[in-house]
Amino acid sequence: MASSADCSSTRITLQTINPNVLKFEYAVRGEISDLAQKLQEELEAKPGSYPFDEIIYCNIGNPQSFGQPPITFIREVLALCDRPPMLDMREAQGLFSVDSKNRALQILDQIPGRATGVYSHAQGIKGLRDTIASGLEARDGFPANPNDLFLTDGASTGVHMMMHLLISSEKDGILCPIPQYPLYSALIALYGGTLVPYYLDEAHGWRVDISELKKQLETATSSGINVKALVVINPGNPTGQVLAEADQKEIVDFCKEEALLLLADEVYQDNVYAEDKQFHSFKKVARSMGYGENDISLVSFHSVSKGFYGECGKRGGYIEVTGFSPQIRDQLYKVSTVHHCANISGQIVASIIMSPPKLGDESYESFCAEKDTILSSLARRAKTLEEAFNSMEGVTCNKAEGAMYLFPQIRLPEKAIKAAEAVNTAPDAFYVRCLLNSTGIVLVPGSGFGQVRGTWHFRCTILPAENKITAIADRIAEFHKRFMDQYRNA
Amino acid sequence: MASSADCSSTRITLQTINPNVLKFEYAVRGEISDLAQKLQEELEAKPGSYPFDEIIYCNIGNPQSFGQPPITFIREVLALCDRPPMLDMREAQGLFSVDSKNRALQILDQIPGRATGVYSHAQGIKGLRDTIASGLEARDGFPANPNDLFLTDGASTGVHMMMHLLISSEKDGILCPIPQYPLYSALIALYGGTLVPYYLDEAHGWRVDISELKKQLETATSSGINVKALVVINPGNPTGQVLAEADQKEIVDFCKEEALLLLADEVYQDNVYAEDKQFHSFKKVARSMGYGENDISLVSFHSVSKGFYGECGKRGGYIEVTGFSPQIRDQLYKVSTVHHCANISGQIVASIIMSPPKLGDESYESFCAEKDTILSSLARRAKTLEEAFNSMEGVTCNKAEGAMYLFPQIRLPEKAIKAAEAVNTAPDAFYVRCLLNSTGIVLVPGSGFGQVRGTWHFRCTILPAENKITAIADRIAEFHKRFMDQYRNA
Repeated sequence: MASSADCSSTRITLQTINPNVLKFEYAVRGEISDLAQKLQEELEAKPGSYPFDEIIYCNIGNPQSFGQPPITFIREVLALCDRPPMLDMREAQGLFSVDSKNRALQILDQIPGRATGVYSHAQGIKGLRDTIASGLEARDGFPANPNDLFLTDGASTGVHMMMHLLISSEKDGILCPIPQYPLYSALIALYGGTLVPYYLDEAHGWRVDISELKKQLETATSSGINVKALVVINPGNPTGQVLAEADQKEIVDFCKEEALLLLADEVYQDNVYAEDKQFHSFKKVARSMGYGENDISLVSFHSVSKGFYGECGKRGGYIEVTGFSPQIRDQLYKVSTVHHCANISGQIVASIIMSPPKLGDESYESFCAEKDTILSSLARRAKTLEEAFNSMEGVTCNKAEGAMYLFPQIRLPEKAIKAAEAVNTAPDAFYVRCLLNSTGIVLVPGSGFGQVRGTWHFRCTILPAENKITAIADRIAEFHKRFMDQYRNA
Repeated sequence: MASSADCSSTRITLQTINPNVLKFEYAVRGEISDLAQKLQEELEAKPGSYPFDEIIYCNIGNPQSFGQPPITFIREVLALCDRPPMLDMREAQGLFSVDSKNRALQILDQIPGRATGVYSHAQGIKGLRDTIASGLEARDGFPANPNDLFLTDGASTGVHMMMHLLISSEKDGILCPIPQYPLYSALIALYGGTLVPYYLDEAHGWRVDISELKKQLETATSSGINVKALVVINPGNPTGQVLAEADQKEIVDFCKEEALLLLADEVYQDNVYAEDKQFHSFKKVARSMGYGENDISLVSFHSVSKGFYGECGKRGGYIEVTGFSPQIRDQLYKVSTVHHCANISGQIVASIIMSPPKLGDESYESFCAEKDTILSSLARRAKTLEEAFNSMEGVTCNKAEGAMYLFPQIRLPEKAIKAAEAVNTAPDAFYVRCLLNSTGIVLVPGSGFGQVRGTWHFRCTILPAENKITAIADRIAEFHKRFMDQYRNA
């Protein structure tokens, strides 16, 4: 056979695999993250081999890796659902709150076979979707339909599903903020589409500017791109802004006028620190403007990985899909079936975050205390880092009104930019790599998120433990001073 | 703007979505499954509206939905990992075996932050991969490398990843058995590739015939398809055969000669019922033939959903990837990063199934007893159904040597075929729909898996509770008799 004449042991080569796989990049898990893992292994093998004792992963929003404790109620319910005999064991009576036990019983009753080991309906367990829909109604004051919910393994699976549905060639465009959470750029490239950028306005707290949206849509359309959807991340990642309701209304009107699908990444909805800001879901905004199912197509993404719960490892989340025709909804359903179903523990956690303990429940006070401790500490940590960055030479940093990140801009000396170019590296990646090598602190360079040409940024999570945050800020500041001294223009 | 002249409220229509989404079908969750859900809702709303009380889902391998209990050791470890304070609580001491507690402690020590709520390394927690690698070495007697393991949310995510890596156009072909587990046909279509069929030999216990493989490869190649990989499912789904080692060796040689990637679906490796058969992993077979990393590229898929554990809802599994060049491995790693990581509970279960309690551990005897109870009962249930099918007019059924299914062939009367054609339905789908409407029993028609043209089959799981299996077999037999009487050729 002709093919066996080729003496290679495999037909799978860089030339034969999917070229989209070759092309795409995912900055959060990219080169810097690999270098950090390498350093960590070296440190473990040879302690003392670097001027630091540990790697501090400020590159990923992974709260529990920094010691943030899980919410007790969530874990009690999970443990009981996985080990239901404990519900009846006398010895176990004192180990769980009454409402944890009641919730576990209620959830088990909703699962066919009363077992967390089952495949569920591809959209998720119906009873849990009912619970989430009630939570959405309580949040928004507008009806929510459990059949519009697709429970997913974290928000990412939801994004995969949507990109799979929307993209079939590079003619298919998705409007994305710049800077953006690089999962969007990664998946748009991996599914073979085109990212149509719109720039957030850094000078005005990373605001979304409608004229910019219009301009970019026009440019893309006139170059033959079929723009299908607009991604908005609110609260913003990596930028931390919380959109004003007036701006959200303009965005909704823009999507309605342009018949664009609005993909609302709302995973940080429980992370708002600015006292003058509040989270409003795009669905609530659209409904409050009088727009219903027939006026606008909207997908909201949520996740159990963020908020005060931070259950990244549970891989739970959902998408709420409204304003789709039944035919398109059926197609999305079909896509969901090839994932079978989201893992049941993640489904359970998703239902709990949308329906936490209520006043009068045994867990209520301790739940609120845990929540407030985490959120108020995150707000203080954000403030500490923001002030530290703003006090550094050539650095300006917008407030983290929400989410889990700061995204400061650094004005780098010409010599540093030249030094980066000499090693074929973006200047911000060069800076971040130098920081990692000298402090063990891992950031993500702005180039991974996109930024206005000629500006340089990095993303830093606000997640390290509060008793370490000042020391971390100091280490970054010391490094920054040395770096600037080294490369300062003569 | 030109686009807003179109007065549709959305640009997302059947004409604008990804045509691969429109095209693909996933039979296990298809039309029959939708009808079953509809009937169930009607039964719940109006009991007595059908000649049966419940829907019996023999269409999906979902053991715990039939009341199969989870393995105690697995659940004790999960509950402790999710709620570590129980490890120290005096009241909890009697609730868990000593080895569950030790295992939970060991696992928590392996997780950064000792928390099941973290994102892990994209390939999975290193310590759990070490455990799985040791389990593979014990199983096969050949070295296994933890860095070759990618922990996944069930085997399906692994199949997604591989199809994403391999397929970029309809010129990319994957050799698949017919009949096949329809996730393969679904994903190959969804990713835009071409399924190159090879037919299993029903007359010889669904054997894989090498001359058939060669013929189909040749035909596909000569029509311009770049065949990249060969899927083998062992034990077989839907066909239940366990491949003989000699046949596996021929398959390995074929892949080596043709430089094909071997995708070995080995999720039923713990489900072998035939006393004269044994599971051999393709890696063990290849290594025992003297073939190493440079001779053959091989991916083995495993899952926590099957075996005696049946933890479908945990969405755990792994792929073991050997014989890939470092460059291709890096590309696969990149694909894994856009899923972040598999859920941690699933990762933990995957490590436990590859490293169960050992002789001397407190749980060992009860673990073995639970395992044997489930596996021996499955073997008896398979036998009962096999005999029932073989006693039905016009039905022949190969033995379920392994896996969880029977795939009998039904010879339908001409009049039944005509009646099916009259309602635009495949004859086997017609039969399965009639069965569902009159008994509440859900099967999957053979046309969903593929079959030799002009033959008709259905797939039936062996999972209903043992005390119900005879009644179910009787109901199918009664229906079958009525159906045959109704449509018998004059």
